[in-house]
Amino acid sequence: MLSRLLIRRLAARHHASLSLLDIRLRHTQEQQRDDRSQHKQRIMATLIGAWTGVALWLQYNNRTDASSSSTEDIDEEKYGAYHSGLPEYTLDDVSKHATIEDRIWVAYRHGVYDITDLIPKHPGGDKILMGAGGSVEPFWSLYAVHQSAHVLDWFETFRIGNLSSDDVGASVKDMNDPYGNEPRRHVALKPSSKKPFNAEPPLRLLVDNLITPNDLFYVRNHLPVPEIDEASYELEICDELTNKEKAFTLKDIKKYPKHTITATIQCAGNRRSEMTKVKPVKGLSWGQAAIGNATWSGARLCDVLKDMGIEDGKTDALHVQFEGLDTDPASMPYGSSIPVEKALDPHGDVILAYEMNGEPIPRDHGYPLRVIVPGVVGARNVKWLGRIVLSENESDAHWQQNDYKGFSPNVDWDTVDFKKSPAIQELPVISAICEPAEGQKVKVKDGKIKVTGYAWSGGGRKIIRVDISSDGGRNWQAANILESDEARHPRAWGWTIWKTEVPVCESESEVQLCVKAIDSQYNTQPENFENIWNLRGVLANAYHRVNVKLGK
Amino acid sequence: MLSRLLIRRLAARHHASLSLLDIRLRHTQEQQRDDRSQHKQRIMATLIGAWTGVALWLQYNNRTDASSSSTEDIDEEKYGAYHSGLPEYTLDDVSKHATIEDRIWVAYRHGVYDITDLIPKHPGGDKILMGAGGSVEPFWSLYAVHQSAHVLDWFETFRIGNLSSDDVGASVKDMNDPYGNEPRRHVALKPSSKKPFNAEPPLRLLVDNLITPNDLFYVRNHLPVPEIDEASYELEICDELTNKEKAFTLKDIKKYPKHTITATIQCAGNRRSEMTKVKPVKGLSWGQAAIGNATWSGARLCDVLKDMGIEDGKTDALHVQFEGLDTDPASMPYGSSIPVEKALDPHGDVILAYEMNGEPIPRDHGYPLRVIVPGVVGARNVKWLGRIVLSENESDAHWQQNDYKGFSPNVDWDTVDFKKSPAIQELPVISAICEPAEGQKVKVKDGKIKVTGYAWSGGGRKIIRVDISSDGGRNWQAANILESDEARHPRAWGWTIWKTEVPVCESESEVQLCVKAIDSQYNTQPENFENIWNLRGVLANAYHRVNVKLGK
Repeated sequence: MLSRLLIRRLAARHHASLSLLDIRLRHTQEQQRDDRSQHKQRIMATLIGAWTGVALWLQYNNRTDASSSSTEDIDEEKYGAYHSGLPEYTLDDVSKHATIEDRIWVAYRHGVYDITDLIPKHPGGDKILMGAGGSVEPFWSLYAVHQSAHVLDWFETFRIGNLSSDDVGASVKDMNDPYGNEPRRHVALKPSSKKPFNAEPPLRLLVDNLITPNDLFYVRNHLPVPEIDEASYELEICDELTNKEKAFTLKDIKKYPKHTITATIQCAGNRRSEMTKVKPVKGLSWGQAAIGNATWSGARLCDVLKDMGIEDGKTDALHVQFEGLDTDPASMPYGSSIPVEKALDPHGDVILAYEMNGEPIPRDHGYPLRVIVPGVVGARNVKWLGRIVLSENESDAHWQQNDYKGFSPNVDWDTVDFKKSPAIQELPVISAICEPAEGQKVKVKDGKIKVTGYAWSGGGRKIIRVDISSDGGRNWQAANILESDEARHPRAWGWTIWKTEVPVCESESEVQLCVKAIDSQYNTQPENFENIWNLRGVLANAYHRVNVKLGK
Repeated sequence: MLSRLLIRRLAARHHASLSLLDIRLRHTQEQQRDDRSQHKQRIMATLIGAWTGVALWLQYNNRTDASSSSTEDIDEEKYGAYHSGLPEYTLDDVSKHATIEDRIWVAYRHGVYDITDLIPKHPGGDKILMGAGGSVEPFWSLYAVHQSAHVLDWFETFRIGNLSSDDVGASVKDMNDPYGNEPRRHVALKPSSKKPFNAEPPLRLLVDNLITPNDLFYVRNHLPVPEIDEASYELEICDELTNKEKAFTLKDIKKYPKHTITATIQCAGNRRSEMTKVKPVKGLSWGQAAIGNATWSGARLCDVLKDMGIEDGKTDALHVQFEGLDTDPASMPYGSSIPVEKALDPHGDVILAYEMNGEPIPRDHGYPLRVIVPGVVGARNVKWLGRIVLSENESDAHWQQNDYKGFSPNVDWDTVDFKKSPAIQELPVISAICEPAEGQKVKVKDGKIKVTGYAWSGGGRKIIRVDISSDGGRNWQAANILESDEARHPRAWGWTIWKTEVPVCESESEVQLCVKAIDSQYNTQPENFENIWNLRGVLANAYHRVNVKLGK
């Protein structure tokens, strides 16, 4: 069952460059008639399956704090070490414990663990069962960001035995670093995680231009960047309701009218580092620059779908699913979906984009094709787009079902039910002060200081006003200059750069600046993070507050 | 020039029942070849013109506080009384002062006033010039709500003379009460103003049903309710860019496919009475019930326009203007506009509605035809619809240009520039607790109390969560039951009724309940009114807070 799923996924992925892991699996398939290899195969499949399950587990278990883990020093020898007095098991033994009935075992370095009792607490539900009976070790090389003493200490409490010395290291012996072929990045990008690569530019650079340069655009990758050959690249589009299916080369896509929009893309976790100060949250510790504004050119998705007979009013599909060509060790692609209304609306401006700011989309941003869903959270703007599925259902991918959702502040990792909350699509109104920076000494001229930043709202809502305060929010004034492109509500996909001079009380040595934006629906931002706190630290759009020192 | 404008407006209004004022004007037109009447005519036209200008002036002058004026006792004899020692003028004299060059005079009872120096401060700009050279008295009977000692005291400072005793009362002599033919209203509606009629139902009745009964739907009228004969009723549609024009009877409109939507309509000033506690604002003192949810049936505006060749991508119009058949004393109709994108989008669901909750629209709600612009502020849902104009420009009506706009909290009546802010269209997310009421004693059962209310967001955004706190906002929990119709984002035009039980600290004798809603764009409400305060008291969507006493 598991290997059939893997094979299907692999088949779907045949255009992507295959990682070493994929190659090993393909190799396994080719040999599937070889009786002698069948036993090995079963071990390998379960081993590989394990990575996904444990990855999900580590990502969501309430003892993980990914925001701190990327910089943590781990004593790697301490965890998974040989413990005398414990029974010894082979990988073959481990592989026999792949169901709840048999109990779920996994291996890590010299250790064997029974994680059955962890499953009921696992937010990913039965996905972890895919991880049964194998080793978690290859996972560590893929999700380095999750190497945290918290997790590992807790993981050790599930220890039941030692792995046979012959099998130690077997699962990673022939494995290259899946991050060995990442693109070069601009030195100014500050990583919040290196594997996968996640980084934001210095905040003050964002306001230099209405358009963020490609090199300085924040990067949010969930998996290794795939290496894709444009010549053999194909995009598959499949309608689950009619079984229509069609493949498009990049050349095919370029035959459709070229449509260019200016759109801001923002990570759901932008400004998470502020929310986490109220109470810790899980996720990459983004500052205020996990957002950027670019022009995107390509074919409109609705034009391409129309050619397949799929258009507004003529389909029973409710969702449009996207799959990336970036895959996890089980060859499961990054995936996500949007409601069909957005995809089929000609004014929804969903673009199959092959250009970013007039250049071929850089590898980090989805080369050769990224779906741009303007006004919608970055997570749905799937990079390295490999497959589109029209369906009655949302994507069943982890990132759609068990991530990128908001919750009430009282919901914690013990009580969360991801089914109860809708996947984030359009993002709420947000703003930030890009200059001056926190703690900076600023020059007062004629009783005023210069302040500049960005403001944006999802859903094509335009920024109509930005209010600034220099006394912590007691008094406000509208910013003088709002710069944005000419797009009108409800297709104002791009952000607004604002500039102003605010009067300050010169007898003070320090003042608190705050900003709030108002969009064309007259929505505005919440004042503080306390009441919008959520366990994943997403939707962090409270007023941005910056304390500065006043100089003469 | 002035009378030509009036005549054009009258012609446009020929289907509406004419008020006595209109009849007098029409009479004036018919006699226009009568030389002897020409002098009288000029006086009458300027007199009537005066009402509009002064109405605007009174509504916006920073010495008016309409929220308190409706209940104020005015010593009517004190204002406009005869002052010995002042020069005497006839109405003919007054009518010669109708331009800035000649200075602008108006009359009120026994008084004559030079209001030239008031003009630069007048937010309606040169509109007040239409009010030059006449009497303001007829205005008082129309806008009784503006009779405030503040205004009258200030008005007296412009006094320059006495009106000739022969002319005193001339302007109102033959005038019936323009509010003499209003419909009967349900006794439960609590008026915030009687002329024009503005009223809301008891808050606790709103949650009895997802659909608000017609009789209990809040009423927000700007002018007297026109009396319209369905048999002679016509709707004019005119395209300013192509000069296409067409008239439709109600029967014509009913030939188009009948489209039914559930949509909430809300006054921009709903919950103003809470905002005004922070600092006084101008406007009717609405509680939390200037909102209602109904089904609306009629022809889609886009279907009707398509028949005239006006459709998406085939017009240069940017705005669609609506005029009501309700008119001010100068025969100027209530007017307002929406962006063309909303009007032409088949999914925008703009309806020329002839039914409300399955019955012919009641007179108070726009009989025989009201344009329903779902997701958009009540002010654009023009009642008694008489005329639609496709244009490059917004409506120039007062309610579009100089009202129903939001401003930064620092903007006051001395600094406001209505041109700087866009007209409110889609409304932001809002919610209210309908039961228990402020100060109510509530029964605690198993440590919990029952709380219920509504939540809604403009722009077709659906309510995805409602958070309730029983400790003033320190702790929150999501409401258990959300009831709404099945419409999906971005066409979720109707509200959500929520119900829940919240735990309370039983050792307390009093607790503060608060509510905030989250919509499908994950926008939420601001915490307090301080930072969203605006001089007109619109967009009052901060958390709703209700203090209740706990009983056993």
